[in-house]
Amino acid sequence: MKKIVNDPQRFVPEMLEGLALANPDTLRYVPEYNLIMRTDAPRDDKVSIVQGSGSGHEPAHVMAVGKGMLDAACPGDVFAAPPMDYVYETTKLVNSSKGVLLLVNNYTGDRMAFDMAQEMSLADGVTVKTLFIDDDVAVQDSTWTVGRRGVAGNFFVIKAVGAASEAGADLDEVVRIGEKVNSVTRTMGLALTACTPPAKGSPLFELGDDEIEIGVGIHGEPGRRRAKIMPGNELVDTLLEPVVNDLPFESGDRVALMINGLGGTPISELYLAYGHAHKQLAERGITVARSYVGEYCTSLDMAGFSVTLVRLDDEIEGLLAAPAEIGMRIF
Amino acid sequence: MKKIVNDPQRFVPEMLEGLALANPDTLRYVPEYNLIMRTDAPRDDKVSIVQGSGSGHEPAHVMAVGKGMLDAACPGDVFAAPPMDYVYETTKLVNSSKGVLLLVNNYTGDRMAFDMAQEMSLADGVTVKTLFIDDDVAVQDSTWTVGRRGVAGNFFVIKAVGAASEAGADLDEVVRIGEKVNSVTRTMGLALTACTPPAKGSPLFELGDDEIEIGVGIHGEPGRRRAKIMPGNELVDTLLEPVVNDLPFESGDRVALMINGLGGTPISELYLAYGHAHKQLAERGITVARSYVGEYCTSLDMAGFSVTLVRLDDEIEGLLAAPAEIGMRIF
Repeated sequence: MKKIVNDPQRFVPEMLEGLALANPDTLRYVPEYNLIMRTDAPRDDKVSIVQGSGSGHEPAHVMAVGKGMLDAACPGDVFAAPPMDYVYETTKLVNSSKGVLLLVNNYTGDRMAFDMAQEMSLADGVTVKTLFIDDDVAVQDSTWTVGRRGVAGNFFVIKAVGAASEAGADLDEVVRIGEKVNSVTRTMGLALTACTPPAKGSPLFELGDDEIEIGVGIHGEPGRRRAKIMPGNELVDTLLEPVVNDLPFESGDRVALMINGLGGTPISELYLAYGHAHKQLAERGITVARSYVGEYCTSLDMAGFSVTLVRLDDEIEGLLAAPAEIGMRIF
Repeated sequence: MKKIVNDPQRFVPEMLEGLALANPDTLRYVPEYNLIMRTDAPRDDKVSIVQGSGSGHEPAHVMAVGKGMLDAACPGDVFAAPPMDYVYETTKLVNSSKGVLLLVNNYTGDRMAFDMAQEMSLADGVTVKTLFIDDDVAVQDSTWTVGRRGVAGNFFVIKAVGAASEAGADLDEVVRIGEKVNSVTRTMGLALTACTPPAKGSPLFELGDDEIEIGVGIHGEPGRRRAKIMPGNELVDTLLEPVVNDLPFESGDRVALMINGLGGTPISELYLAYGHAHKQLAERGITVARSYVGEYCTSLDMAGFSVTLVRLDDEIEGLLAAPAEIGMRIF
């Protein structure tokens, strides 16, 4: 294994410490509970938004903490749900008089941790609700899921509820918006290579030199099928077709299109994929009104990508266009 | 080879087409000369800034076109200088009454193309100057260089001259600023893996399962030495030490610190590296005033990273902090 890592057990805390050092004015790292929070959280003029999940999906979700996005993120170890008591402590730390919304990708371990943390927080008098995200159309149930998995489309839920909460929406309204965005968001991904968790030191699964995994999960879970590598445009079609057909997205729709890199794929390849997807959607009469190309939800160093579509209306488009500032930025 | 690619000969044009489709309001792709330019260029109230180089280093430089950054980028094929006549045509397309500044990383092929294009443009009456960037401390001369190579530190030159030109500085002043930033910027990188150019289809060089290349170039050129893989903090020290000692950076200095991913390294690992570098600099009495973590100048899918330091003064810090908008963004 060749990675930038010291003790694999310290991989996540050392990453979080680096993130906070890079953003001293806006982010705070709380080592006791392994969480990242905004320095100005909680604010009583807004609902606090929290996301938790396993690590290894960066920038999701610790690098999505910031104004107009998350108030805090409580990550677990690589590909592991955060401990229930850390979620509970996070909820208390960001408790606002307007309440707390917990965002959770739909994995069984995460659901358990967050359900229990919510129970404990409610018993303490914290106003808290939970929203589950399940945008992945690849499989119905899977290795660690009952129902669909939550993957890169999560970004759009965070962005929308983050904007709504900044604008002063109350908890019920923020939940309504989050559920609405989740309901019109669909994603599917494929792996060109497996990923290597630091603590394991070897690839998480085997994939032949000319093989790809279509519908892969962000923890390397099996998808729909194995196939041989194919030209780039066909890779895009292989993902776009099931995504479009699932909602379905139809002629006349306005959409946000995201090409999300899974960690090891260069951005040059992602823009090539974007171009083909954009043109294929245009041929179906679907207009791309907002574009997102880059890494949003990764699987460590996995090569591959996912395609996400969101059906827009004026409300969602306005929320996605609202200003935001996160801990990961170019400038 | 498993990549998102169709015909390797069309890799760069298809990427550029995708980039323009993702930014229809701000970017234009000109297929005749394979260039990306701002839709509002040229503007006679500012010097036009152009960067050319081989492709394969994205987001450098085609994704750095935008307000406050480049007016145009004319890329060559992967790891190949742009054709001289394309540079010439680009210069004419963005010709402003305030003149044109050509930014060129110091590689022999690029220098030749830009020197000839500048001659031809001057003969046409275009006011044009050229600035060479050579921030890489790893080697003095190398495979494709006389003198030092230009690598990720280039970003800071673009950012500073872009901000100055937006503020209305004349060509001589923009050149002065660019030369000043280049003179206080130092970079060194290392490769954990080789990269695979689409047209070659196999790794560009051989690196053992436990080997790294210290001082690697962004085209896979040899650096200072091979070594065995080491813990993350030691990897950082291996780069930080020669970078600090070269200028040298000294106690009391304020700096910008960039941890740049080479294409295949997850951002989680880059933040871990950032944390250690930040703390090591603090121990030397060097204050990190601006932080940059992510991919700025890559080598296709190479795993690895580089460390860049810029010594700041009020002028440079102000220019780096000025607003800018580029074609690659999270929101």
